[in-house]
Amino acid sequence: MNKILIFDSTLRDGAQAEGISFSVADKLKIVETLDELGVSYIEAGNPGSNPKDLEFFKNVRKIELKNAKLTAFGSTRRMNTPVEDDANINSLIRADTPTVAIFGKTWDFHVEHILKTTLEENLNMIYDTIKFFKDNNKEVVFDAEHFFDGYKNNKEYALKTLQVALKAGADCLVLCETNGGSFPNEVYDIVKEVSESIDANIGIHAHDDTGMAVANSIMAVLGGANHVQGTLIGFGERCGNANLSTIIPNLQLKKGYRCIEQDNIEKLTITSRKIAEISNISLKSNMPYVGRSAFTHKAGMHIDGVTKASKSFEHIEPSMVGNERRFLMSEVAGRSTIIEKIQKLYPHLEKNHELTTKIIDEIKKMEHRGYQFEGADGTFELLVRKTLGKYKPFFDVGEFKIIGEQPNSQKGISSSAIIKLVVDGKKEITAAEGEGPVNALDKALRKALEGFYPELKNMHLTDYKVRVLNTQAATAAITRVLIESTDGEDYWSTVGVSSDIIEASWIALVDSIEYKLIKDIEKKFKTYL
Amino acid sequence: MNKILIFDSTLRDGAQAEGISFSVADKLKIVETLDELGVSYIEAGNPGSNPKDLEFFKNVRKIELKNAKLTAFGSTRRMNTPVEDDANINSLIRADTPTVAIFGKTWDFHVEHILKTTLEENLNMIYDTIKFFKDNNKEVVFDAEHFFDGYKNNKEYALKTLQVALKAGADCLVLCETNGGSFPNEVYDIVKEVSESIDANIGIHAHDDTGMAVANSIMAVLGGANHVQGTLIGFGERCGNANLSTIIPNLQLKKGYRCIEQDNIEKLTITSRKIAEISNISLKSNMPYVGRSAFTHKAGMHIDGVTKASKSFEHIEPSMVGNERRFLMSEVAGRSTIIEKIQKLYPHLEKNHELTTKIIDEIKKMEHRGYQFEGADGTFELLVRKTLGKYKPFFDVGEFKIIGEQPNSQKGISSSAIIKLVVDGKKEITAAEGEGPVNALDKALRKALEGFYPELKNMHLTDYKVRVLNTQAATAAITRVLIESTDGEDYWSTVGVSSDIIEASWIALVDSIEYKLIKDIEKKFKTYL
Repeated sequence: MNKILIFDSTLRDGAQAEGISFSVADKLKIVETLDELGVSYIEAGNPGSNPKDLEFFKNVRKIELKNAKLTAFGSTRRMNTPVEDDANINSLIRADTPTVAIFGKTWDFHVEHILKTTLEENLNMIYDTIKFFKDNNKEVVFDAEHFFDGYKNNKEYALKTLQVALKAGADCLVLCETNGGSFPNEVYDIVKEVSESIDANIGIHAHDDTGMAVANSIMAVLGGANHVQGTLIGFGERCGNANLSTIIPNLQLKKGYRCIEQDNIEKLTITSRKIAEISNISLKSNMPYVGRSAFTHKAGMHIDGVTKASKSFEHIEPSMVGNERRFLMSEVAGRSTIIEKIQKLYPHLEKNHELTTKIIDEIKKMEHRGYQFEGADGTFELLVRKTLGKYKPFFDVGEFKIIGEQPNSQKGISSSAIIKLVVDGKKEITAAEGEGPVNALDKALRKALEGFYPELKNMHLTDYKVRVLNTQAATAAITRVLIESTDGEDYWSTVGVSSDIIEASWIALVDSIEYKLIKDIEKKFKTYL
Repeated sequence: MNKILIFDSTLRDGAQAEGISFSVADKLKIVETLDELGVSYIEAGNPGSNPKDLEFFKNVRKIELKNAKLTAFGSTRRMNTPVEDDANINSLIRADTPTVAIFGKTWDFHVEHILKTTLEENLNMIYDTIKFFKDNNKEVVFDAEHFFDGYKNNKEYALKTLQVALKAGADCLVLCETNGGSFPNEVYDIVKEVSESIDANIGIHAHDDTGMAVANSIMAVLGGANHVQGTLIGFGERCGNANLSTIIPNLQLKKGYRCIEQDNIEKLTITSRKIAEISNISLKSNMPYVGRSAFTHKAGMHIDGVTKASKSFEHIEPSMVGNERRFLMSEVAGRSTIIEKIQKLYPHLEKNHELTTKIIDEIKKMEHRGYQFEGADGTFELLVRKTLGKYKPFFDVGEFKIIGEQPNSQKGISSSAIIKLVVDGKKEITAAEGEGPVNALDKALRKALEGFYPELKNMHLTDYKVRVLNTQAATAAITRVLIESTDGEDYWSTVGVSSDIIEASWIALVDSIEYKLIKDIEKKFKTYL
C-alpha cells in the first residue's frame, strides 16, 4: 500500500481566502481537529510575517499531537543577507516546530522581475536557507513556487532549483501549481519527468483557478508524487487550494493509497463540517463526499435506482465517509448515525423501539428547520431526555421583552430586557441592561435564576457563534446560534434556530442552563429522573 | 480552429440540484441569457415527466434564438411498447424543438437490475426511439447513460449501444459519466478508444462527485470529444454537473478551441452572475474565472507581485472573462494595497498626500475596532469619500427603537421598529414589523426612504452575514455584520461593527443605501460631488 503524506494548509494558505480570519483560539481548535483526522502535516502559519501567528505557536505547544507534525511556513532568506541575520528565518526557528516549509522561486521570470535578483543568487537563497534549517535539525519541505510555469518557461533552471534544494538536504520537493493554470495531462507529464530524473520525495500543491486542483493533485500522484498539499475543505487564495476532503477519499477509496488511517475515513464528513463551523463559513452543500447534498437524490428515477441498488447512482456508499444518503421527496436519512448517538447516552434503548423512532422523527423535523446537532451535544442530549420522559423543566418563562434604542445614552449599553419567570410556583420579575439585546437578555435570565440555583454562578459562556443560514433571505434569514458554556469542569454546547436572532439565542441560552442544572443533579445523586 | 459544441443543461439536470426550483418565467429568462452568451444547445426540460415543462415549451416558441438550439430531454421508449404509443415520446414531439436528447442505458447492470429488461430489448429501445425521432426530422443527441461504468463492466455491450444509436441515425453520441466516479486518465483513455473505433460526433457529460467534472470534460475533449454537456455555473444532481463557465475559458483561452464567439468570452462573468440571480442562489465566490474572489489577492507578497506583473499570480487577465482584480485589505496586506485601492477611486490622489495618510489612519483605527474592509468595497468607498469631502448625507436618522417580545403573537413576527428621520428638512416617522429586530429595522428604514428615493425599490439585499469576533466574550462580544446588495446591475458590500448586533446591522444597512444613491447619481450626471 502506497502511503501518501497529507499536508494541510488550512491555517496558512486557507487563511488567504477572502472572508477567512482566524483567532488564535480558532487556530488551536483546527489543529486539534486535523490531528484527530490524522493528516501528516499541519501548516499553521508564517511566524515571520504575522505577530498573531507567533502567539499561536507559543500556545500550540500545550497540545500533544497524535498524528500530525506541526509546520511553520516561511520564505527563503532575503537576498544578499546572511541567513542567520534574517529576522523571518529566526522567527521560524523560534516557532519551534519539527517541520518547516520553505518556499523559493523556481520560475526565472519571477526571480528576475518580481524578486529582482539574479538566477544565481536565488539558487544561493534556496541552498542557504534549507541548509540552515537542516543544521538546526528541522525536517524541511521545499515548496517550489510556480514550478509548472517555471518548467514550461525554463526547464533547466526550474530543475536546477530542485537539485539545489535536494543538495541542501530538503526532505521533500513540492511542485507548486501556484497560479492554478495547468492542465491534468501537463501536471502528470511534468511530475513524471521530475520524479524519474530526481531521486527525492515529490509533492504537489495545486490551486483551483481552472477548476482542476483535485484532478491535478490526483494526476501528480499517478505521476509519482507521494505528498499532497491542500486545505481540508478547499478554501484558499483566489479560487482556493486543492480540496483534501475530496482528494483523500479519491486516492484511498478508489486507488488503494493510504492517506490517513482507514478507520478515520468515516470521520471525513464530520471533520469537514467542524472546520467549516470553526472558520465560520458554510460548507458548500454540493461538495464531493462531505457536502450535505453529495448523496442527495431528487429525480424519481434516481431514487428508484438507488433504492434497488445504491451503486446505480452513487459512486461510493455515503457511510464510508460518514455522510448520508438523502431523498429529497421523502426525507429518509441518517437513521443509523442518530441511533448510534442515542445509544451512547442510553445503551439499552433498542434501535427499533418506538421511542427511538420518535427521537429520530423529532431530530429530522428540527434539522429541516435548520438545526444542526453536530456541534451541539447539550441540545441533543436534552432532546433525547425530553422524548424519553427523563426531563422536567427547572423554570417557566412567562414572557420577555427587549427594547433597543439609538442613540444610546451610555457607550455600548443600548438595550434592556425585562423577564418574567416562575420557579416552583414562585414568580420572579427582573430586568437588566446590556450591550445589545442578546447580552441584556442573557444577564436578565441569570439574574432571575441565580437566587434559586446558586450553582449557575460558576457557569459562564465561552463561545457565542452566529450563522446566517439562507443568507439570500437577507435580514429575514434563518439564524443559527451556537453557544458553548463551561463551569470549569465541563464544556457543553447548545444550539437555537429562528428567523429572529434574539429567539435563536434565547433557545440556546435556556438549553445551556438546563443542561448545567441536570448535569449537577446527576453528579450529586447519580441519577436525575 | 476546432469547434466544440456547448450543451447547457441548467434547466434540466441543473433543476435536479437541491434548492433549485424554476418557475416558467425563470426558465424563459435563462434561455434568453444562455442564448445571448452563445451556447450551441439549451436543454430545457423533460416535457414527458413534468407538466410545467410542457407549458414552458409552449411559451418558449415566442423567443427567437440567435445561437442556441432548444433541446427537449427524454428517455428511450418504454420496454415492450411500440414507440409511437409511448406518451413520453409523443410529448417530446409536441415540445416542438429542433433537437431532442434521448438517454438510454449502456451499463448492463442497469439494464438487468434497475430497468429489469433484457440486453437485447434495451438495444431495441435505443434503436426504435432514435429512429422515430430521425423519421420526424429531429436532430438527436444520444445520452449514453453510465457509459464509463458500463464500459468498465462490459465493454462490448456498452459499445454495442453506441453502434445501435448511430445506426438509428443519432447525430451525436454523448458518453455520460453519470455517477461521477471516473478519473481523468480513465476518461481520456475511454473517449480516445471510442472515438477511434466509432466514426461519430462524441460528447461528454460529467458529474462532480469526485471533484473532477471539469477535468474529465477537458480530458474527453483532448481524447476526441467535440460536444460538452454541463451547466453554466455547475449546479446539478448531487455534487453538480460539469461547470461550463470554467470549461469554456479553459478550452477557448488556453487550448485554442472555439466554444462560443470570441467576443462573448468577456460576458462569462456577468452571465454567470445573472444565472445565479435568476436561480436564486449565491454564486460561489471562489468559482474559477467568474467568482467574485477568482482574481482577489490578500497576501502582501501576491499583491506586490501582481502589481509588478499580473501574470505573476494570475493565470489569465481577469478582464478577458469580464471579471476584475481585487486587493483585499487585511492584516496581511499593507499600506500599498490601501493606496492602490484609493487610487482606483481617485487616480490623482498622491500616495504621500495628507488626505491619503488620513484615510489610512482612519482605516487602521476602524480595523482595530473589528472592521474588515476586504469584502466591503461599498463601505471602503464611502469612507474615502467622507475623508475627501466628496460626500453629503441623504438623510439624518433622529432615532430608532426596536421592541422584541416573546411569546410573539404571529409566527415569526416577533419584533417591531420605530424610526424617525429627516430628508431635506422633511420629517418622517414610520414603523414596521419583522422577523427579528434587524428585519423590522430594515423594513422600516426602506419604508421611510422610498417616498424620497424611489430608486431604492430596485435594490435588495442578497447576503447578510454575521461574524462574532471575540466569541469568548459571549453575548457581549463584538459583532461584525456584512451585507451584500444588488440593484440587478451591480453588487456592493458594506460592513458594520458593534457589540450590539442591531447597531452593527444598522451601520451596514445605511452604508448600503447611501452607496446605491451615490452610484445612481454618478451614473446619471457623471459626477456626484
